Order: sequence, then C-alpha cells, then structure tokens
Amino acid sequence: MALGSPLSLNTVTVKERWGLAECIEGCARHGIPGISPWRDVLQAMGVAAAARQIRDAGLSVTGLCRGGMFPAADAAGRAAAIADNLRAIEQAHALGAACLVMVCGGLPPGSRDLPGARAMVSDGLEAILPAARAAGVNLALEPLHPMTCADRSVLSTTAQALDLCDMLGDGVGVALDCYHIWWDPAVAAQIARAGSRIMAFHACDWLVPTTDLLLDRGMPGDGVIDIAGLRAMVEQAGYTGFTEIELLSRRWWAEDPDHVLQTMKASHKV
Amino acid sequence: MALGSPLSLNTVTVKERWGLAECIEGCARHGIPGISPWRDVLQAMGVAAAARQIRDAGLSVTGLCRGGMFPAADAAGRAAAIADNLRAIEQAHALGAACLVMVCGGLPPGSRDLPGARAMVSDGLEAILPAARAAGVNLALEPLHPMTCADRSVLSTTAQALDLCDMLGDGVGVALDCYHIWWDPAVAAQIARAGSRIMAFHACDWLVPTTDLLLDRGMPGDGVIDIAGLRAMVEQAGYTGFTEIELLSRRWWAEDPDHVLQTMKASHKV
Repeated sequence: MALGSPLSLNTVTVKERWGLAECIEGCARHGIPGISPWRDVLQAMGVAAAARQIRDAGLSVTGLCRGGMFPAADAAGRAAAIADNLRAIEQAHALGAACLVMVCGGLPPGSRDLPGARAMVSDGLEAILPAARAAGVNLALEPLHPMTCADRSVLSTTAQALDLCDMLGDGVGVALDCYHIWWDPAVAAQIARAGSRIMAFHACDWLVPTTDLLLDRGMPGDGVIDIAGLRAMVEQAGYTGFTEIELLSRRWWAEDPDHVLQTMKASHKV
Repeated sequence: MALGSPLSLNTVTVKERWGLAECIEGCARHGIPGISPWRDVLQAMGVAAAARQIRDAGLSVTGLCRGGMFPAADAAGRAAAIADNLRAIEQAHALGAACLVMVCGGLPPGSRDLPGARAMVSDGLEAILPAARAAGVNLALEPLHPMTCADRSVLSTTAQALDLCDMLGDGVGVALDCYHIWWDPAVAAQIARAGSRIMAFHACDWLVPTTDLLLDRGMPGDGVIDIAGLRAMVEQAGYTGFTEIELLSRRWWAEDPDHVLQTMKASHKV
C-alpha cells in the first residue's frame, strides 16, 4: 500500500455483496481505518449494534450517507424529507460520524423550476440545522456532478455549496468528491475558499468512455481525474483527513468484496 | 406552429437519413428559415454546391458545426487541428455562416492534465483568430456539458467561455445550448454578462432518465429544461436570432425526418 492519507470504505462500494457487519469486519481485516455507511445498511443492522461493532473494531466513521433530498412536489413531501433528515442526524450522532453527507435532491417530478428546487434545498437545510447543531452533527453539502441535476442534486458546484455555507453559518461544510468536481474550471479557487469547511474527501475516477450516468464510476487510477492534484489542493486548504472511496459501479459490485478492498488499497496513492 | 423566434435545423438532428441537400429541401418544404450544417454533410455535398442551394432556398446559415478539437498529445496533432480549423473558417466564409461553432476538445488520450488541455484550447483559438477575423467569420465558443469534459470539451461553463472571449477580443463569442448550460447556478448572471457576444442559441432538452451521455438528447418540451426561461434570458441580453434545434438522439435519428421537422415546429415555443 502506498503511503498517504488514511483510507475509508464507503459501504455502497460493495453494496451488492456485503451488509454493514461484513463491511466493518472487512475494514478491520484489510487494515482500512475508516468507514462511511449508507443508511440502508445501517438500518438493516441496527444503529446501536453498528455503533458498538464499529467502535470495537477501532474504525472512524468518516461520514453517514446520506441526508438531503429536500425538493418535493408538495408541502407534505418536503415535511417528510425534513423528518427523515432529523432521523439521519440522530443516526449520525449515534455513530459519532464526522459528518452527515447531504445529497440535496433533484427537481420535483414534473417540475422545470430549477431555482425553485434550489430554494427548497436551502429551506430544508435551514430547517434541520438547529437540530444538527444541537446534536453536534456536521452537515457536509456534497455538490454532485451536473449530470445529476435533474434527478439527484440541484447542488451542482463547489461555489454553490460554499455560497450556501456562507448563508447558513456554523456546522455546515462541504464533502468534495473528485468525481463530481474535477471538471470545474473554478475548482482550485473554490477548494482554497472552502478552507476549514472541507469535511470529507471522496475519491473515484472518471472512466473514458463512461457508459452510465450513475453506475459507471471508476476505481482511482482507472480514469482521467488528477486525484493526487485534487488531494493536494484540499491539503493545501487545511484538510488532513481520510480519503473515502465511494464507487457506484456495476463492474465493481460484481467483484468479490475482498478483492475490491485489496484493489482500493493498491490504488490508493494520495 | 407557435409564434416565436425563427427556427433553424442543425443537420445532425436527421443525420442518419438525410444528406445536406435533403436537409435544405426539407427546411424549405417545412418553412424552417435557418440551417446549420455539420462539416461531414457539407463536404459530402461540396461547399460551392451547398452554398448555392442554400442561397437559392433563401435559408440563413445560423452556424457551421464545427471547429475546435484543439488538444492533442503532440505538436503535430495540435498543428493538424489548427490546419483543420483554418479549413473550417474557409467553409464558414463560403457559406456566409453566422458563426463557426467551436467544440473545443477533451483531454488528449492518456492525459490527466486538464489545465494543460485548457491551455491548448486557448492557444489554438489564438492561432486561428487572425484568419477568422480576416475572413469575417465569428468564432462561437460552445461550452459543453461537464459530462463531456474528458472526451469532447474541456470548455465546460459559460463563465469559462466568456473569460476566453475577454482574453481573445473581437470576433469571438459564445454559442449557448440549453442542454449544456441549464444546470449552471451562474447561468443567469453569465448570460447577462455575455450580452452582444451571444452568437447562437441551441435548444434541446434533458430527459429523465437520460440513458446515454451523448446520444439521448430530448426534443424541446420532452424534458426538464426551462427552455423558454433561457430564451428569455438571451433575449434580455440582446440576442434576437434563431433558435437552432440540434438533437443527438438515437430515438429521433430512427424517425422519418419529415416527422422530425414537423415535431420540431410543433414543439417550438420560444
């Protein structure tokens, strides 16, 4: 394994084969010191049991995936999203997660009102922030690639995320995923601007060609992103934490998870 | 047909069925006053013959697609790209095209050096600009969706295109395609900034779900983009020209071109 930042496994990377207990055991077995669960596997295991096993394994929880998904077609839908986010905050607190990663949501079904959806995101974050602060849970806004704007995240750039941080104040920062931000002409300036608000750093790679908008993300090193360069930028900005590997990939989901973790370690250069 | 801006057919929209002569005849038959040829069909027909038939049909050439594709792995490749762009400028001049649309190119094969590729684009534009000015051919920089950054366009945002315009000066503007810019949180501000430098306005729609990164663009109205809103922004900025329909779509390529043109007209609301 190359020397570098501490590694964290995002559980979605092996979601077809392993539940959370197996992910925790796998991290321990492979010497991966961090883990970032998705809520589906967390809830399947049970939050208390998961918190105990993670603590016993000596792992850091680098994030909980995910809060967000605020826009909805009606007030009841938006209220349901806020209620779900409040449960996510409790879960992040129970795990001692470094942050709750916010995937903010796309356009409501049938809507073409992008500014309106963005306002719903802002309103949703404002609504849950008091609870997050009270619980000591950091909210990490994750800008997602613009190709996800319609259906997953109207939060599209690092600049836009930092504008929200500026507005919302303490307890809100950013989760920066190389896959989502690498193309941005403003990325260097915006990472410098982010400074101490960088709460997570995710690595995966852009494959050429990319054959699916959601499920064809590459193992670091297999694509064209200068991941080392982006890691250097976040370190220059003051972030010294984990590099989390989060792959949504049919190709890697089909592999033996032990092989995936070995490959992650071998590919980890930053 | 709804009242609105004059319509233009980009020939790629019917590329599987019609050559340029049939596109010209089709525009005349359907009362579509503008045409924007790609160079493959232009060269297949012959530039002089095409110019004559377009003039005889009374059509406006709203753009020639395309120049650009500057980044290359070595100096010979970059020189070849410049030579090809000089030929494209001659063709645009011969057609009396409103602009030569620049699709600037992606990363050179094997490269992860995005700033380097962007510098190659800037250098390439500088190299061809004197010839473009001498020929009276406007260069319209087209920012492409960030999902094309690796393999088609490292020019990713309207702001980045306008920064290049600022640097390059007279004779350089932007071609704004709703499909490529709709997601951008800065789009309203950047369209206002563009002002008189808007040389073309392209409409196609973002489908949900989108099943292919290149060939699943939607007919206006079939997706989630607020095309009318973007058209209002460019008009507010001073652009009163054509709305060009450029669909790269396996679904529409499979249709009878007369039906495609009828649908374009029926869908044209801006």
